[in-house]
Amino acid sequence: MTINSIPSTQLRLTSNITSAGKLILSLETIPVPEPAEHEVLVRIEAAPINPSDLALLVGPADISTLQASGTQDNPTITMDVPESLLKPMAKRLDTPMPVGNEAAGVVVTAGAKASHLLGKTVGIAGGDMYCQYRCIPATNCLVMNEGTTAKEAASCFVNPLTSLSMVETMRMENHKALVHTAAASNLGQMLVKICQADDVPLVNIVRNEQQVAILKQLGAQYICNSSSPDFMQSLVTALIETGATLAFDAIGGGKLASQILTAMEIAINHDAKEYSRYGSSVHKQVYVYGGLDLSPIVLNRAFGMAWGVGGWLLTPFITRMGMERFLQLRQRVANEINTTFASHYTQEISLAETLNKEIILGYTKQATGEKYLITPQK
Amino acid sequence: MTINSIPSTQLRLTSNITSAGKLILSLETIPVPEPAEHEVLVRIEAAPINPSDLALLVGPADISTLQASGTQDNPTITMDVPESLLKPMAKRLDTPMPVGNEAAGVVVTAGAKASHLLGKTVGIAGGDMYCQYRCIPATNCLVMNEGTTAKEAASCFVNPLTSLSMVETMRMENHKALVHTAAASNLGQMLVKICQADDVPLVNIVRNEQQVAILKQLGAQYICNSSSPDFMQSLVTALIETGATLAFDAIGGGKLASQILTAMEIAINHDAKEYSRYGSSVHKQVYVYGGLDLSPIVLNRAFGMAWGVGGWLLTPFITRMGMERFLQLRQRVANEINTTFASHYTQEISLAETLNKEIILGYTKQATGEKYLITPQK
Repeated sequence: MTINSIPSTQLRLTSNITSAGKLILSLETIPVPEPAEHEVLVRIEAAPINPSDLALLVGPADISTLQASGTQDNPTITMDVPESLLKPMAKRLDTPMPVGNEAAGVVVTAGAKASHLLGKTVGIAGGDMYCQYRCIPATNCLVMNEGTTAKEAASCFVNPLTSLSMVETMRMENHKALVHTAAASNLGQMLVKICQADDVPLVNIVRNEQQVAILKQLGAQYICNSSSPDFMQSLVTALIETGATLAFDAIGGGKLASQILTAMEIAINHDAKEYSRYGSSVHKQVYVYGGLDLSPIVLNRAFGMAWGVGGWLLTPFITRMGMERFLQLRQRVANEINTTFASHYTQEISLAETLNKEIILGYTKQATGEKYLITPQK
Repeated sequence: MTINSIPSTQLRLTSNITSAGKLILSLETIPVPEPAEHEVLVRIEAAPINPSDLALLVGPADISTLQASGTQDNPTITMDVPESLLKPMAKRLDTPMPVGNEAAGVVVTAGAKASHLLGKTVGIAGGDMYCQYRCIPATNCLVMNEGTTAKEAASCFVNPLTSLSMVETMRMENHKALVHTAAASNLGQMLVKICQADDVPLVNIVRNEQQVAILKQLGAQYICNSSSPDFMQSLVTALIETGATLAFDAIGGGKLASQILTAMEIAINHDAKEYSRYGSSVHKQVYVYGGLDLSPIVLNRAFGMAWGVGGWLLTPFITRMGMERFLQLRQRVANEINTTFASHYTQEISLAETLNKEIILGYTKQATGEKYLITPQK
């Protein structure tokens, strides 16, 4: 079944790293697919550019070498990839990769066993979202409540489910409070609201006063500014009050993870009576889920032996929490898409504009408060 | 019940860090304790100096400032502790700390419910072992088989149970092979023998050709020399062949943990067909259990998102594996104390000699192949 008229071809954005060391971004024209029995075809109305999209879109390319060519409607962007960074890319060389982690749109065609979704506004995730029509299994659709628009639903997967899963991780691993870095981000603001609603103490670490102000306005209780001279002291105080022993770190480079573990250890030992040569026996964990700083992580190990630092990704965590709980979280996102999980965009751009030089320079800055929304039907 | 005559007082070695920033090592004369109902009194015959003892014994003190005073029989050692390192020591300041993780000796007095141990040679652990008589619960004694001497049993806890527990950790966390650093150490040699007996592939990382030779003589199959220019290549090859995704690292400073994770990721992706922007989904883990290099750990994150680095200690792991399994491992140690778990000492010293300047300079070097045994009855 189909509603509206569906074109036979569509545009899709791809990123290709060539073995000659060039990254090429362009739009390709491809057929609109037909959904199978359990699938739906979604007309993509809106897709955000998240930090996690940039890894595939721009990856290791040197933005300062960006060259634009082609026409306004069919632009091509070329950048150099430093030779030393080509090797980890070996498996993707000379293969145009579709891009885009999540999007939202309207189901315009449905397979025989997915017709209940026809006409619904849905959020979807799974890559290849920077296109105009996307075929996907019906079970992968986050069905929005009546009245929710595709633009409102565009960011319903990555940030909402990541922030909810941080709180889930905290519960599963027996911590009682959280630390979050780059905490004024779109995701960070969602986490503040979730923790307020769920009564979870949250220590927010930000990098400047502007970000402090954003979180104060949301009513965040613990805000520590890492640029402030009393950062460590304020962090220790917040950790003593909250008892947080789990941190999610979006930055992932430099000394911040080490500082967090050290402050946790000081807070834990605050009331200790006896010296322990191995430090406290309380496990302290930092999960790195982003890479805003790609420099090495430097751990000074002033935090005993009960510690861990590791990578954290949403997808394997979903497997770990199980489908039943995941569906509960998805429903919460649908119900709170305009409150807890509301996203704000500073610019709406077409697929062609996504390959505009000035716009690329804008969204690759990853500045707090700036977020781009691709509207591929424009 | 008591065998032999027991003196009323004994010598005990203590380490005291004063609030004035001095570390003082000395011998104190204390009463010989009386065992309670479930306890035994062990006459300590032999106690090794392990790297893990040095943290408490010498800790943050600056060895180059070492000053000896007192008499030959009642020596006192003083060293400066840099002021910046005093703060983490706050809880132990001005409190003489007894030292020594493990020892072996003969049960010379037993409480009413522990008399079955009277006259037995036992290995014991739990701190405060650098003394002449130690009271301890009977259940904490690792009872040696007939014919085993106290010197043979002296190192029956720390290295044997740590190396056995590394293999246990591997099994519990679903890895199929191990990487070990500083692999020519006393502990590393035990691990080589355990892995040979248990058919566990083991990749040994050492730092020089002398250590390569030690492990070759033991029949170790995979030996990678981190000083060699082809280190990374040989490590990747060994990881492809073994499939090891778990490493135990005694060094804990510098780039080695990062290199191991990177080599694991390269090995895992060796046969991968597709590019994954997040790296492989196979979890790669490095547990840091020692601190031969106290400089920061530097992680370059060229190994995807499925990774962890963390501290590892024997004691919490024993709780995790459970008492039943722990007792099985203890019995294996008793049975194999002169084969798999044989330790060799380069020097036997009395308690007073433990506080001799030249000897301190010797055992604090932590040189491979050099191991000191304290014989407190001398």
